[in-house]
Amino acid sequence: MKMDNSPARGTRDLLPATVAVRDHVLAKITGVYHRYGYQRIETPALENIERLTGGQGGENEKLIYRVLRRGLDETVAADITLTDLVDLGLRYDLTVPLTRFYGNNQATLPQPFRSFQIGPVWRAERPQKGRYRQFYQCDIDMLGEESVLAEVELIEATTEALAATGLDGATVRVSDRRFLSALAAAAGLPEAAWGGLFITLDKLDKIGWDGVRAELPGRGLGGAAIDRLQESITSLQGGDPATLEKRLVAAVPNAPEEFVADLTATASALAALDGLTWEFDPTLVRGMGYYTGQIFEIVHPASSGSIAGGGRYDKLIGRSLGRDVPACGFSIGFERIIDILGGVAAGARVAVLYEADVPLTTVTGAARELRAGGDRAVSPIRRRGKFGAQLGRLEEWGFTSVVHLKGDAGDTPEERPLGGR
Amino acid sequence: MKMDNSPARGTRDLLPATVAVRDHVLAKITGVYHRYGYQRIETPALENIERLTGGQGGENEKLIYRVLRRGLDETVAADITLTDLVDLGLRYDLTVPLTRFYGNNQATLPQPFRSFQIGPVWRAERPQKGRYRQFYQCDIDMLGEESVLAEVELIEATTEALAATGLDGATVRVSDRRFLSALAAAAGLPEAAWGGLFITLDKLDKIGWDGVRAELPGRGLGGAAIDRLQESITSLQGGDPATLEKRLVAAVPNAPEEFVADLTATASALAALDGLTWEFDPTLVRGMGYYTGQIFEIVHPASSGSIAGGGRYDKLIGRSLGRDVPACGFSIGFERIIDILGGVAAGARVAVLYEADVPLTTVTGAARELRAGGDRAVSPIRRRGKFGAQLGRLEEWGFTSVVHLKGDAGDTPEERPLGGR
Repeated sequence: MKMDNSPARGTRDLLPATVAVRDHVLAKITGVYHRYGYQRIETPALENIERLTGGQGGENEKLIYRVLRRGLDETVAADITLTDLVDLGLRYDLTVPLTRFYGNNQATLPQPFRSFQIGPVWRAERPQKGRYRQFYQCDIDMLGEESVLAEVELIEATTEALAATGLDGATVRVSDRRFLSALAAAAGLPEAAWGGLFITLDKLDKIGWDGVRAELPGRGLGGAAIDRLQESITSLQGGDPATLEKRLVAAVPNAPEEFVADLTATASALAALDGLTWEFDPTLVRGMGYYTGQIFEIVHPASSGSIAGGGRYDKLIGRSLGRDVPACGFSIGFERIIDILGGVAAGARVAVLYEADVPLTTVTGAARELRAGGDRAVSPIRRRGKFGAQLGRLEEWGFTSVVHLKGDAGDTPEERPLGGR
Repeated sequence: MKMDNSPARGTRDLLPATVAVRDHVLAKITGVYHRYGYQRIETPALENIERLTGGQGGENEKLIYRVLRRGLDETVAADITLTDLVDLGLRYDLTVPLTRFYGNNQATLPQPFRSFQIGPVWRAERPQKGRYRQFYQCDIDMLGEESVLAEVELIEATTEALAATGLDGATVRVSDRRFLSALAAAAGLPEAAWGGLFITLDKLDKIGWDGVRAELPGRGLGGAAIDRLQESITSLQGGDPATLEKRLVAAVPNAPEEFVADLTATASALAALDGLTWEFDPTLVRGMGYYTGQIFEIVHPASSGSIAGGGRYDKLIGRSLGRDVPACGFSIGFERIIDILGGVAAGARVAVLYEADVPLTTVTGAARELRAGGDRAVSPIRRRGKFGAQLGRLEEWGFTSVVHLKGDAGDTPEERPLGGR
């Protein structure tokens, strides 16, 4: 009988070779974050449903896996709604749990607290190629630091972590929600219309100025305002970093002083970093509504989307804690990194290939001796079928060498490399 | 406003110091399993509900967190039952997913396949001290090996992994489902009554022979059968391992030959291991109904329950794959190990304590230089409040040394150890 052993729709099994890549990347990232003093925490996968549906998650709240209360009757009473039946949900990100965690534990945490989280999140998205309903997020956050020390350190640590995984050639893009707000206000738009403008601006690198200009009347902007907007943005793209501050003040005279001061401080700190490529990107928006200051992302030639993103969210923790705590975070697109990196060099794996008549203690003893001889995997495997075919299978399975144990006691068998590995 | 930021009922937040212990233990276990060639795999947390409720999980199936289908109407129609509303559940163990994984991927897996899994499982148990509704399991399994090479290697690897975490003084207890069946058959019980007998025998070390004998009439045994049973079991407890086989044949003459041969082979292989303490325990039962051969557990003086358990389950994979595949597994009680071990020595952590007037680039530059000087965590922290109190807080937060940056440019500041650490 043929049975269906597929994982649940939209999810996947991770095979040994895939897990090896993930573990390798994770170890590299963890090593860097550890040296910056980020401390790993873990929160439960399940959160109370009220917390998950509080508005912080935006569109993601529509994708929550909802969990039934326990001890319910199998028959549902007539006047019951789904809301009555549900008390928990699976987290859709690591930020909602982090703000709860901070509210729950802040008395014992360092000030500022450097948090590192890696773990699965769940979103009931429409299944599509390369997107899964369970995937990992990998976030660092600094909670309790109001200055751009947070932004600068998060950018430095994240780019160093990405470089440690083997990804060279990344570019950091920086913008600021306060700049975007000033830009929208200068264009004469009421606050309710800013979001629409940002969505259009975010598409500039895809649809170009022709596309953007065509959308802007629908966003409430007239011809003169559109011209001014294009001029402002164009004047801030590229150019000499040394003149950025001057150009900013010229382009958006209503931009708050703190925004300009923060960007100038960030710029000079990033300039001191060897090998970091960064730019101010006036069309960078980042989706989440909770950002309040600088926002940033990292792009890489091998990926069409960004491979990391984050920003400052000074008003989010207040919703759980009852008082505002300055906060800033940077999230690596872990699954995207894995897709880009592909494989990883496997370590040495020795097969102890034994004939059926070799005593068990001889087999386990030989394996033990080989294990003691070095840091490598050693696994006994009974020979099945033809010897040559068996060697081929061992190679397929990732073994790098073989020791053949025969029944007749003789010389210590020799270890032989497998194939052209 | 005071808000409730507790995690969902029965779950917990893991703070940095706790995660550090867990990561340390996990690294030690992983290192050992890797050297035996066990390959880590990962399966999704969510499985189709039909698979989770197929009977394999025994009592655990009553504790499943059930997940609502997506896209349902908020109002529940009159003739709907909970079963209609649910399509997924959170896994309650790692064995059900493993058998599905093997069925789904066996064509590409080595033969035998050595699987290593570590990850959270969920059970909606009544909350109690030290038990959580989300907890980690840590399993190795060998799939496709019919000989006791599997049992012996699993026992060797698991005891070595436990020793690597720092747990000395563990004892392995071994029994066999085929022995227990022969014992029950010899006592004259019909197969349907065996389970009840095993439950009573399992309690011998808690309630003693008086307690066991008092229960046995209720299990269907008469006085003479009870005497014979007590005599058989007593003759197999302790004693010279060299005479175990002889005593076994005498005590349960109806025991299948394969059972005696397997135990003899296991005994001689385990005897070859330095520092391993093991015993045949005729009252060892292990709860899961799917075991078919040898069963084993590891006990430790610091824990009242076992700290690892497992056994052979040759008929389980057949339920997913459609053909039987011999299988054997050993699971470390990860949470119990963490409870026993408590803390772990923290690494060096340097605080770069800076005054508010120190330029950002000076702060980040000093941190960078310290990081380059060695493998330790380096984190800038702005001085807040009195200097002495700040030093006290740094120590509380786990920093082991401090570098104090003042506004006036001067000599390179000195790194000073913190407190009596």
